[in-house]
Amino acid sequence: MRPQSVSVTGGGSIVWITWPDGMEARFHAIWLRDNALDAETRSAGNGQRLITILDVPASTAVMDAKISPKGDLAVTFGPNGHRTSFPSAWLRDHVYDTSKAAEPGWVSPETTVWDAGLQTSVPKVSYAAVVRQAPVLRDWLTAVRRYGFAVLRDVPRETGSLAEVVKLFGFVRETNYGRWFDVRAEVDPNNLAFTNLGLQAHTDNPYRDPVPTLQLLCCLENTVEGGESSVVDGFMVAERLRREDRDGFALLTRFPVRFDYGGPAGIRLRAKRPMIELGPDGEMIAVRFNNRSAAPFTDIPFEAMPAFYAAYRRFAEIVEDESMQVTFKLEPGELFIVDNTRVLHARKAFSSSGTRWLQGCYADKDGLLSTLAALETSTTDRVAE
Amino acid sequence: MRPQSVSVTGGGSIVWITWPDGMEARFHAIWLRDNALDAETRSAGNGQRLITILDVPASTAVMDAKISPKGDLAVTFGPNGHRTSFPSAWLRDHVYDTSKAAEPGWVSPETTVWDAGLQTSVPKVSYAAVVRQAPVLRDWLTAVRRYGFAVLRDVPRETGSLAEVVKLFGFVRETNYGRWFDVRAEVDPNNLAFTNLGLQAHTDNPYRDPVPTLQLLCCLENTVEGGESSVVDGFMVAERLRREDRDGFALLTRFPVRFDYGGPAGIRLRAKRPMIELGPDGEMIAVRFNNRSAAPFTDIPFEAMPAFYAAYRRFAEIVEDESMQVTFKLEPGELFIVDNTRVLHARKAFSSSGTRWLQGCYADKDGLLSTLAALETSTTDRVAE
Repeated sequence: MRPQSVSVTGGGSIVWITWPDGMEARFHAIWLRDNALDAETRSAGNGQRLITILDVPASTAVMDAKISPKGDLAVTFGPNGHRTSFPSAWLRDHVYDTSKAAEPGWVSPETTVWDAGLQTSVPKVSYAAVVRQAPVLRDWLTAVRRYGFAVLRDVPRETGSLAEVVKLFGFVRETNYGRWFDVRAEVDPNNLAFTNLGLQAHTDNPYRDPVPTLQLLCCLENTVEGGESSVVDGFMVAERLRREDRDGFALLTRFPVRFDYGGPAGIRLRAKRPMIELGPDGEMIAVRFNNRSAAPFTDIPFEAMPAFYAAYRRFAEIVEDESMQVTFKLEPGELFIVDNTRVLHARKAFSSSGTRWLQGCYADKDGLLSTLAALETSTTDRVAE
Repeated sequence: MRPQSVSVTGGGSIVWITWPDGMEARFHAIWLRDNALDAETRSAGNGQRLITILDVPASTAVMDAKISPKGDLAVTFGPNGHRTSFPSAWLRDHVYDTSKAAEPGWVSPETTVWDAGLQTSVPKVSYAAVVRQAPVLRDWLTAVRRYGFAVLRDVPRETGSLAEVVKLFGFVRETNYGRWFDVRAEVDPNNLAFTNLGLQAHTDNPYRDPVPTLQLLCCLENTVEGGESSVVDGFMVAERLRREDRDGFALLTRFPVRFDYGGPAGIRLRAKRPMIELGPDGEMIAVRFNNRSAAPFTDIPFEAMPAFYAAYRRFAEIVEDESMQVTFKLEPGELFIVDNTRVLHARKAFSSSGTRWLQGCYADKDGLLSTLAALETSTTDRVAE
């Protein structure tokens, strides 16, 4: 859409643009110069910025601004006469002149929080389809981004299959547990995961910083009684807590807790992070919750400790509320993936007769979100739809 | 040290302990019960907690507390009569009854910020020594934790050697660049790193979330003119900014910025994080700074943008200040490691005659800090000193 009008105010420091649909926005001269799209400013080959902020004079001002015949904003900057132009659509996509005061704990529009209602519409597709059809892969990855959880069926029942799944979108995060690891009842286990005990809903490895942002669990055998899996949206839990008890929610965001794992020799993992992590703009960034590896909380003022514990207890109660849980029993060849910064997973205790053999694997969201964004913008993919 | 006295107040909700050296501390009943060390509460085998917060009644109170003949704190909890005891040393290590109001931007005591003064005492040891001698490895890793930077010499001049170095303390973080990648001038590079241009001091891959927390750069050949490396302590830069301009510092912590990388097909990496990241308790957590991949900042209110840019400029000026930089020219067989959440690295432009061949690799701090903590507590190592 072609801009309707452009004017320069503040002694050349601000450009006002209006569009025919009523949209209007102000841009600062310094911001426009820093973000110029021309080949002197950004590499034509790879899009990276060639200049630094120190190449932009502090006295930068707009000497002239007009709408070009093509509908671009054409700008001449002082003090050095640099000329450049910005497509109208690019400017509309990058408007920052808006009021964005959101409540602490807001979630990205790419995210939909959920409760047990998701049970009837769990995102679930076959391995063969995600391997062969880019649109199916894209939709499956979209579900991971939106819900932080998805299932894959008919995964080859072979050791390490789950690492092949990771290759579809990114890279395995190798840890002291290996590139992947077996999850089954063991004699003398170094982690309670490797027993037949039930495990309270938790995020994995909060004692690690950076925490693995994705976890996959793949079932190879399952002939036990019990051992059902369930998942809970930690963002929804946090949101419920906030609605019930704003002060309790704030306590879990304001103070870090500690996590610790030191099972086998040579391993001593420790981290200090909040249970509910907000970005500086209040966006919900991550949840960390794990009874097994929670270390003594020593970063909370004495006076705040009772209220902190009350909020922690309430968070746990909401996690345990069945109306929050999606429950299923993994069949051999089924795999689930969780956003480990958001979705908690649990398992019920299981019988000692029969075999329950899962494999687990960590990966990271950077690769997944990058692959998804590329699939979303690729022409090939659009044609395939 | 044996406690001197113990008393219970607040209707059983608080235990007061004093020690002969004047130390005194209060602990809440709920905190003590949650952190009990007995075999009903924590796995004797792997130390993980067996109970959840929901197994601890909200009405938990201390019915009786006394000093045992051994000097432990022996406690009986109501309402269910659980008995347990805490070693005096453990209690002293976990005191939380202290005032901790620190200024935003404080750094961990394990960290020492530095400027160009570090030039004469760069931590630098030989590869053979870190491989063969645990105390040398421990000291080298301690330098990485303390300064976020260290050098290794006499690394085998073979492709992938740097991944062998990572194995000494942790695991490679594989990315779209590979397990490791070549850094040399290329035709049609997908990243300006792969040219002979100078690169402003930066942290790597801020467009990735989670960001790789360690980077290694290893030199295989270097016969060019120029191409010197330098490193700058981003925590020291932030600290200087804070001392000069508290409001400017606060702006860089309060608003997230965006980073973007979308060179080759299939890759579209984006992240939104602040340039200076503080934990909820104000601890300096990370610095992200990269002119090449900074995307338009759209999360800063219009009114704050000029002051934000002024703070960004000042941060960059401090980065460029020679009094902040440690500069060196990597020789073949030399490698440096940086804490990529803290230390910026730069390179000078270099001549097109001659060859400059580096390899880069990412890894994570969880493994490094775990290995270091294990080395610090291992008896073998103490004997070796």
